[in-house]
Amino acid sequence: MQAEIITIGDEILIGQIVDTNSAWMGQQLNKIGVEVYQIRSISDSKEHIFEALSTLHTDTKFVFITGGLGPTNDDITKNTLTEYFGTKLVFNEDLYKDIEKLFDAIGREVTNLNRMQAEVPESCYPIRNPNGTAPGMWFNEGGVQYISMPGVPYEMKAIMADFVIPKIIAEYDTPFIIHRTVLTQGIPESYLAETLEKWEGSLPSFIKLAYLPSAGTVRLRLSARGTDEDVLNTALNEQIALLQPLIGDAIFGYHDDKLEEVVGEMLKQQGKTLSTAESCTGGYIAHQITSVPGSSAYFMGAVVSYDNTVKHGSLDVSEKDLLEFGAVSEQVVRQMALGVQKKMNTDYAIATSGIAGPDGGTEEKPVGTVWIAIATPNDVITKKFQFGKSRERNIKKTALMALDMLRKALS
Amino acid sequence: MQAEIITIGDEILIGQIVDTNSAWMGQQLNKIGVEVYQIRSISDSKEHIFEALSTLHTDTKFVFITGGLGPTNDDITKNTLTEYFGTKLVFNEDLYKDIEKLFDAIGREVTNLNRMQAEVPESCYPIRNPNGTAPGMWFNEGGVQYISMPGVPYEMKAIMADFVIPKIIAEYDTPFIIHRTVLTQGIPESYLAETLEKWEGSLPSFIKLAYLPSAGTVRLRLSARGTDEDVLNTALNEQIALLQPLIGDAIFGYHDDKLEEVVGEMLKQQGKTLSTAESCTGGYIAHQITSVPGSSAYFMGAVVSYDNTVKHGSLDVSEKDLLEFGAVSEQVVRQMALGVQKKMNTDYAIATSGIAGPDGGTEEKPVGTVWIAIATPNDVITKKFQFGKSRERNIKKTALMALDMLRKALS
Repeated sequence: MQAEIITIGDEILIGQIVDTNSAWMGQQLNKIGVEVYQIRSISDSKEHIFEALSTLHTDTKFVFITGGLGPTNDDITKNTLTEYFGTKLVFNEDLYKDIEKLFDAIGREVTNLNRMQAEVPESCYPIRNPNGTAPGMWFNEGGVQYISMPGVPYEMKAIMADFVIPKIIAEYDTPFIIHRTVLTQGIPESYLAETLEKWEGSLPSFIKLAYLPSAGTVRLRLSARGTDEDVLNTALNEQIALLQPLIGDAIFGYHDDKLEEVVGEMLKQQGKTLSTAESCTGGYIAHQITSVPGSSAYFMGAVVSYDNTVKHGSLDVSEKDLLEFGAVSEQVVRQMALGVQKKMNTDYAIATSGIAGPDGGTEEKPVGTVWIAIATPNDVITKKFQFGKSRERNIKKTALMALDMLRKALS
Repeated sequence: MQAEIITIGDEILIGQIVDTNSAWMGQQLNKIGVEVYQIRSISDSKEHIFEALSTLHTDTKFVFITGGLGPTNDDITKNTLTEYFGTKLVFNEDLYKDIEKLFDAIGREVTNLNRMQAEVPESCYPIRNPNGTAPGMWFNEGGVQYISMPGVPYEMKAIMADFVIPKIIAEYDTPFIIHRTVLTQGIPESYLAETLEKWEGSLPSFIKLAYLPSAGTVRLRLSARGTDEDVLNTALNEQIALLQPLIGDAIFGYHDDKLEEVVGEMLKQQGKTLSTAESCTGGYIAHQITSVPGSSAYFMGAVVSYDNTVKHGSLDVSEKDLLEFGAVSEQVVRQMALGVQKKMNTDYAIATSGIAGPDGGTEEKPVGTVWIAIATPNDVITKKFQFGKSRERNIKKTALMALDMLRKALS
């Protein structure tokens, strides 16, 4: 069952916003066996919308359209679809009541612009929007389903989750598409590919393999497609069992587990606690850990010791060592880890200190120099890294490596 | 001068990764007057690549293609382009030397798979990749420029910044496209639109207005297009001057300033320092602040007091108040702000405490209840918010509101 996604909005084309909606929709649709053939991002222009709608792939059965449904003049999707499908706008009393309720809740009167949002094309099925004033619209034209939704992510997601996905599951007989991802670390992509060449060559034809490299990791994605879910799962399990002895130690997770989830799960199962002392990562590791629901069970807290006075004052790092070895040193990062471990009374602690850039590098310690320490109940593991020049990338790579060092210490 | 972007990779279509490359390219191209007409994300399939290349808009002069250039079997872009343009692969000695150097640096031998990456289509101009083994390729076919680059963001960005953008600037006469963004907070989109109706109606025809709502803010984007940069800048300045008296207090920044940059700039200019004490935001505010280069000049550090023992032990919050009022209360958040302000000896401090969800809510304090405090040199400002049910959104909204409260306190 094939779908296409069309996202409408100049803000995407000029790069003012990143289109995260499409990835989310792709994930949700894949889970129910709907395959996204193509994603097109186009401008807020009638001609462009007409062109996109009239050049769909012949196998496409679903078209998901986001954006351009707001109350302001630059939002033209509703009028354009009304014209494209040769219908007219009609006022919908139920939708108007929903809008009234939203305005009541914030103690304001419904404006005329918002009143117009209760007008929908006569030929569509209007979809209530629990989180906003712009309703969704479902058109069935020539056997193709066109679903138009607002571009605001949490409005689109609610409409998809509450209405669109359940309706597709109920009314369409879709095949199974199952993805498994094996997360690896420490082996460059080309070496991995050579190691796995034979295994890859013997994969059954309904399983497709992809290598997805990103900062420090390579994800192997196995995608199986077919009509029998059990057959697909069994085949995937078999292939992953064959893979493990080939690259065992480099594997740090499966599916789309994030490292912070993998580590969190390990801490929870072992009944252990964690704290962090962060300099160059500036709270990013604590943020990643606490973005996992339920992390309060094992995460006690963090000290972001950006300034050296805080390293000394809040983490008991020796002033002498700060002076002698500098903040970016094994001595200091070790004391930071021990300091926060003791202060917050945790079993494990992560500490980071480095030069994130773009400034602050020296000949001896160039931008990208990072020390990481992991305090365990028995000892402290330290490691030095040399990353690149990008501040954002240095922060992210440091977090990734620190969480991976913790994972290894926990296993 | 019109461009299209084609991103190749099943991982985008199944939502395994978010395509951030296109937004970045859109921004960079816009700055030099190249307008992105459309972004297409397509699968790793020869047929699909052929189809995308053969259905470009007639006005398109540049085609930016990313992805599918890796060393593994699922990477088919190079071979497909070679076939599409009717040329053949030739081995390039210079590119091979670049690859050798990269492998030397990590102390490994060049694999055969990587050796093949030094083969490029004969009819293209190969572009060296300073950050990876896959070279870029520039084809000039029938007056259209096709630029193929790796999908790994920092490889693509280096090729664009070092080679592609300078070449376009040097060789093409592009118009000016200038965007100005006015950041507003506190007025819903539809009210804003009614307030600005008259002003919007009188905008000159070469200036386009867009409303971009997102969590808690509405950005107004003015886009001017023309051949004389000074004329465009003058006209934009005039329009923004007319806008200010209409919605003055709601404006918190211009351009694409982020709040953490706005606040950082204010702190730097006033010579003041900042610390944070974070519970529900879990270090996210510290991360945002420290993502700004140079933030070490005004940001001393943070305490992420996730557990109540840390609120008491590291921030001196009264145990009695924690018990009596609970962690999510005005009393506690006020003490957190004062505690970190004193401990880290800063002029200002931000504190947050709330129920991010999805669990942990009660009837009295449902998920989304958040208290924020800002300690200033003279007093403490506190405010209660009621956000929604999404953990991610609650963390982000809290950070946004906290930084905006600080901005108001600083101005």
